[in-house]
Amino acid sequence: MYAIGIDMGGTNLKSALIHKHNGIIQQYSTPTNAEAGLEATLDLIARTVKERMEESPEKPFGIGIGAPGMISLDRKTVSNPPNLPGWDVVHLAEEIQQRTGLPCLLENDANLMALGSARFGSGAPYKHFIMITLGTGVGGGIIYNNVLFRGATGSAGELGHVIIDYNGPSSNSSAKGGVEAYLGQRFLSRRAADEIKKHPDNELYTRFRDNFDALEPVDLTLAAEAGNQLAVDILSDAGRMLGYALVNYIHTLDIRKIVVSGGVAKSGKWILDPAREAALSRLMGPFHADFEIIPEKLGNESALLGAGVLALENL
Amino acid sequence: MYAIGIDMGGTNLKSALIHKHNGIIQQYSTPTNAEAGLEATLDLIARTVKERMEESPEKPFGIGIGAPGMISLDRKTVSNPPNLPGWDVVHLAEEIQQRTGLPCLLENDANLMALGSARFGSGAPYKHFIMITLGTGVGGGIIYNNVLFRGATGSAGELGHVIIDYNGPSSNSSAKGGVEAYLGQRFLSRRAADEIKKHPDNELYTRFRDNFDALEPVDLTLAAEAGNQLAVDILSDAGRMLGYALVNYIHTLDIRKIVVSGGVAKSGKWILDPAREAALSRLMGPFHADFEIIPEKLGNESALLGAGVLALENL
Repeated sequence: MYAIGIDMGGTNLKSALIHKHNGIIQQYSTPTNAEAGLEATLDLIARTVKERMEESPEKPFGIGIGAPGMISLDRKTVSNPPNLPGWDVVHLAEEIQQRTGLPCLLENDANLMALGSARFGSGAPYKHFIMITLGTGVGGGIIYNNVLFRGATGSAGELGHVIIDYNGPSSNSSAKGGVEAYLGQRFLSRRAADEIKKHPDNELYTRFRDNFDALEPVDLTLAAEAGNQLAVDILSDAGRMLGYALVNYIHTLDIRKIVVSGGVAKSGKWILDPAREAALSRLMGPFHADFEIIPEKLGNESALLGAGVLALENL
Repeated sequence: MYAIGIDMGGTNLKSALIHKHNGIIQQYSTPTNAEAGLEATLDLIARTVKERMEESPEKPFGIGIGAPGMISLDRKTVSNPPNLPGWDVVHLAEEIQQRTGLPCLLENDANLMALGSARFGSGAPYKHFIMITLGTGVGGGIIYNNVLFRGATGSAGELGHVIIDYNGPSSNSSAKGGVEAYLGQRFLSRRAADEIKKHPDNELYTRFRDNFDALEPVDLTLAAEAGNQLAVDILSDAGRMLGYALVNYIHTLDIRKIVVSGGVAKSGKWILDPAREAALSRLMGPFHADFEIIPEKLGNESALLGAGVLALENL
């Protein structure tokens, strides 16, 4: 059984034909060219779907689309996606079904990464787990009884906007002091730059003093691995913030397997070890059992896989 | 259809015969006398159940017990309840069934209050809602699709231990800066006393200066209603902390109806209005729709009602 997975980004439109058991057959990427407007983007998606249909050895079951913005409870409509000018409320599933003849469902990226992980990735062994995506922003997806926990309107799992310090810094969310304001790529980089500026003797200062905007989390990871204690401390501090957020998710949901994916997650032990330690220091005793942080083994393809799973399991 | 509800406290054992539609027929309370030990308490529960059985016009369907401590996923076993010396891991449901001949299930108090509210209280109109109990501690229960959301092991909804300031004060939980450390009765009273001590000209100082331990949240409420601005500010501050915690629950669960019960909740608008305002200031835009804080109309009987519902719906 095959489905077509689409991952709509502001920059690129990724697509793949996905087999129920074998996963991605082949993956493609094309510029979204969002400034061409809504109709052009809808046509591009439809054209991409048709290309994938031609590759399929049998008629695909349907289409799953990972879309930015708010997704309706019936997974048919997307509202106010950022970085897509001219989109307001779009009945995207219907538009694509009309253009391709295949049924279609939508979901947000972090939820699709959770679904992809549940069937093909590090989440596969667990009936319940929480996916945290550490990228430009911090996203979340909750797998409960093997399916997505969606809440009252389909918007559950906005885990980057869970507050750990109500007096804390702002991210681009209204949730001041949310964990994204510490671990979102840009925010982590900016906090790191502020810290490094206090240490003009540090090697990171020397490297970035002319352009602190170029500093990325990966630079901190490499420096930490080379023994730079300041980098270790900065990543460790970020990890602790993640740990406090995990306490909040776990005390609320009683789901104790945490799968972490995304760019910042590549900092691995420098972030995840302090996160684990901080979480254990604040979790109530009975929640310590079975608590585990697991790095996602899949890469960027997890959302595409999840898009395929969405279509295969929900259409 | 009838069931027997039991609410086990460290001090009193409450019980009632409960009708599926009409609720509590009659309610009783007897000292738990916990220091007499496990066997004596089991016998007391069994004796109480038999008394309620005799009042019932037909054979009761079963027994629901609200118990302190951790409840197992199958709702049969309780572990390490506080204030019950000699209890370690007790197969309470089985012990009571053997002594009475009726099947039995356990659940924690806050979850039962949520269930009671869902069928007989202010939660009844909602398919999904979050129950917050503001009492000695701060508890929570999550109703999702009309039933309790229980998580991986049955311990979901420890909402008092959700952190709003990782540098914040401690309650008796390991979750430093959890919302209970601001709103639990004792913690709220202590924080209020600290504040009042800074204002020796205030009427509350004059009243409590010889015994600040006697200060209770209700004193703040009465003072606020009499126009004492310091009391208004203290309750408002506590309300804001609740509001930040609500943001965390709502961003995680996408459940936007919040039912508040318990002693501290009696402070009404002095706490709940600032909570609403603080939550709206931090909730992401799409979560504002349908967000509502609703005071529970049931009193102490909500847990007993929930115990009856537990038995009637899950046995």
